[in-house]
Amino acid sequence: MTTTLQDCRAMDAQDPLRPLRDLFVVPQGVTYLDGNSLGVMPKSAAARVAQVATEEWAQGLIRSWNAAGWFTMPQRLGDKLAQLMGAKAGEVVVTDSTSINLYKVLSAALTMAAQDAPHRTVVVSERTNFPTDLYIAQGLCKANGFTLELVDDGALDAAMRPDVAVLMLTHVNYRTGAMHDMKAITAAAQGAGVLTIWDLAHSAGAVPVDLNGADADFAVGCGYKYLNGGPGAPAFVWVHPRHAGRFEQPLSGWWGHAAPFEFAPGYRPAEGISRYLCGTQPIISMAALECGLDAMLAAQPLGGMQALRAKSLALTDLFISLVEQRCAGHGIELVTPRGHAQRGSQVCLTRSEGAYAIVQALIARGVIGDYRAADVASGVQQEILRFGFTPLYIGFEDTWNAVEHLKQVLDTHEWQRAGFNQKHAVT
Amino acid sequence: MTTTLQDCRAMDAQDPLRPLRDLFVVPQGVTYLDGNSLGVMPKSAAARVAQVATEEWAQGLIRSWNAAGWFTMPQRLGDKLAQLMGAKAGEVVVTDSTSINLYKVLSAALTMAAQDAPHRTVVVSERTNFPTDLYIAQGLCKANGFTLELVDDGALDAAMRPDVAVLMLTHVNYRTGAMHDMKAITAAAQGAGVLTIWDLAHSAGAVPVDLNGADADFAVGCGYKYLNGGPGAPAFVWVHPRHAGRFEQPLSGWWGHAAPFEFAPGYRPAEGISRYLCGTQPIISMAALECGLDAMLAAQPLGGMQALRAKSLALTDLFISLVEQRCAGHGIELVTPRGHAQRGSQVCLTRSEGAYAIVQALIARGVIGDYRAADVASGVQQEILRFGFTPLYIGFEDTWNAVEHLKQVLDTHEWQRAGFNQKHAVT
Repeated sequence: MTTTLQDCRAMDAQDPLRPLRDLFVVPQGVTYLDGNSLGVMPKSAAARVAQVATEEWAQGLIRSWNAAGWFTMPQRLGDKLAQLMGAKAGEVVVTDSTSINLYKVLSAALTMAAQDAPHRTVVVSERTNFPTDLYIAQGLCKANGFTLELVDDGALDAAMRPDVAVLMLTHVNYRTGAMHDMKAITAAAQGAGVLTIWDLAHSAGAVPVDLNGADADFAVGCGYKYLNGGPGAPAFVWVHPRHAGRFEQPLSGWWGHAAPFEFAPGYRPAEGISRYLCGTQPIISMAALECGLDAMLAAQPLGGMQALRAKSLALTDLFISLVEQRCAGHGIELVTPRGHAQRGSQVCLTRSEGAYAIVQALIARGVIGDYRAADVASGVQQEILRFGFTPLYIGFEDTWNAVEHLKQVLDTHEWQRAGFNQKHAVT
Repeated sequence: MTTTLQDCRAMDAQDPLRPLRDLFVVPQGVTYLDGNSLGVMPKSAAARVAQVATEEWAQGLIRSWNAAGWFTMPQRLGDKLAQLMGAKAGEVVVTDSTSINLYKVLSAALTMAAQDAPHRTVVVSERTNFPTDLYIAQGLCKANGFTLELVDDGALDAAMRPDVAVLMLTHVNYRTGAMHDMKAITAAAQGAGVLTIWDLAHSAGAVPVDLNGADADFAVGCGYKYLNGGPGAPAFVWVHPRHAGRFEQPLSGWWGHAAPFEFAPGYRPAEGISRYLCGTQPIISMAALECGLDAMLAAQPLGGMQALRAKSLALTDLFISLVEQRCAGHGIELVTPRGHAQRGSQVCLTRSEGAYAIVQALIARGVIGDYRAADVASGVQQEILRFGFTPLYIGFEDTWNAVEHLKQVLDTHEWQRAGFNQKHAVT
């Protein structure tokens, strides 16, 4: 059964989530399949950012720390985000960057392991985990006398050993779109006495996450991808309440103090998740992120993350099937798992030649996805064409258009034209 | 010789820096003497923040990382800031918070000491240093087997010992406005084999700083005080080139990698100061800070930091002399040193009673300074009325007005009115 453009338009017409698209600025002539790298701008963000600058900062000045609620933004945004990840109010703070938050929770986990189970001296992660996560882990393991052991994708049985302290995973792989079963892996780890840290960079706002339901230990993630918080938006951190008050994290700054305004000379960590704060936060960027979170929460009356997930799977299923129908014979292969339970909200393709140039040719046509190079050091030879589907603002006709352009780029060998193969820095 | 309002107006009229005030929004009816807590908004920031949101983010999307120069902002802003602190291009990055940057440089300093001089196991700071700096030092010393020794203000001879690894000081004290002689102290420390870390939170943009001239080792500071970068603006870090490439800092994230876009599995620090970066930065807040830095640099053709310093001293001299002339007999005492070489860009007063209520009464009249409580644990009993003078936008008539209101609040006992003594959280 072939799907037509008319079918796609009918799907958009029947999509109950379609009105959410109006909450965002999607540029004319652009099919944006890179929301897993930087989400689009919620329309409300422009006015909100202007308000923070011209009213709260310029007019309110120092008084706005209280009057405009700046000081409690990490917790207020955290409470909003908690609703999207199976966490409770008071369990999440929005602050700093993902890398810094990972440093905090991995430090706490290593302290905990050293105290509770000193024979556990190994941290396990996947070779294909997001590199910055591995960089942070390399440094912390070295400094604390732990060994970082990297395993092949999915070979997690190796982590369930009596010498392993922490299993640190990214829930949805940034390169392949493959998704782990958080609940099953966490349960297996817990059964083996292993703590779990989940990086939700490609999960929060993209797929349903149930941190308390999975009984995870720690989680961190990113505000500027599927949460549409703006470039470099602050990140987040969640710690299970059974741990949150137990250990200090090493970045013991005043925003994590039990009484930050006492300016007491001794550090005394706040109760619970607030001790994972450190220094003053960038308020204008925080305000933009709050607009992104509010736009996510606008989906709650329409079925929330479950409804978004159903649409995301419909979009990625459609993309896969259209690519296979319409681009057949061009050597394009699917990298992302076909099984729904193993797929995040992106589809990754590969081709033995030209992946970079094809992505560039698509961008020139207004279809923005991104390219990921081979990771030779990790034994991953595939070059990736990556397409993220954010169901809040991507529709079925968009998906058709993306494949139509891909087909034309391949049919006409457009990607072999001069210029498209010229590499420059990408993010 | 008494100074009159007319004298003050004449001083404003003759002030060659006066046109700089037009670069900033100073709210009607407000005399803002709290720029050492949160600087005012440069007029350019409103349009720039809007541009980042509605053009670079909303329309440029992921392409703006290159096209709009987002990725190089830490270095670009660092190069601008370097000019204000006696540093060279390529020696400063703007990133993260002051507390986090202090963590990075103190970690590097402790690593260096452990390697070069393992008998040096003490970190010295002042009891009255900014508390969050002490919190960071407490944690790092404990984790690394160092002892944190706190000395009384200025009793720094105690730091010049063969067992001391690091002397960590704030250049201008946040509570008293007293300024250290960076060059002399650094030279004495260097003579004793002690590394120096300077927190420039109340110095950068406020007083001339010559990091290379002083031959300091490390410096950090804040973007939202005298640099007018907006609420929670990112902070900065400088490391002397002789150290910058030598040690890794522990927050080894991808922005500090030698080749961040290779996504290589192993961490390899960038050359020089860029290795002090960690994760993705909040671009909208960074853009606002760049406006603050550009407004500072607009003073360069008018004499730059030296001219700003001369005006700052004239303003604080005037404030002190007017308070002593016009508020005599009300029990107000000067806390900030009278000597120019010992004074930052703020004046701190104290009174045996009512300091908090007096500040509140002044705020109700539109004269915004701030209050700092006694620090009993450190043996500091004085309650502080703190007034910051930012010569970029504060004038001589402003200074007259502030004292006039203070006089009226004291003459009429207005501060004893109900309400002014009711404390709430302040920053």
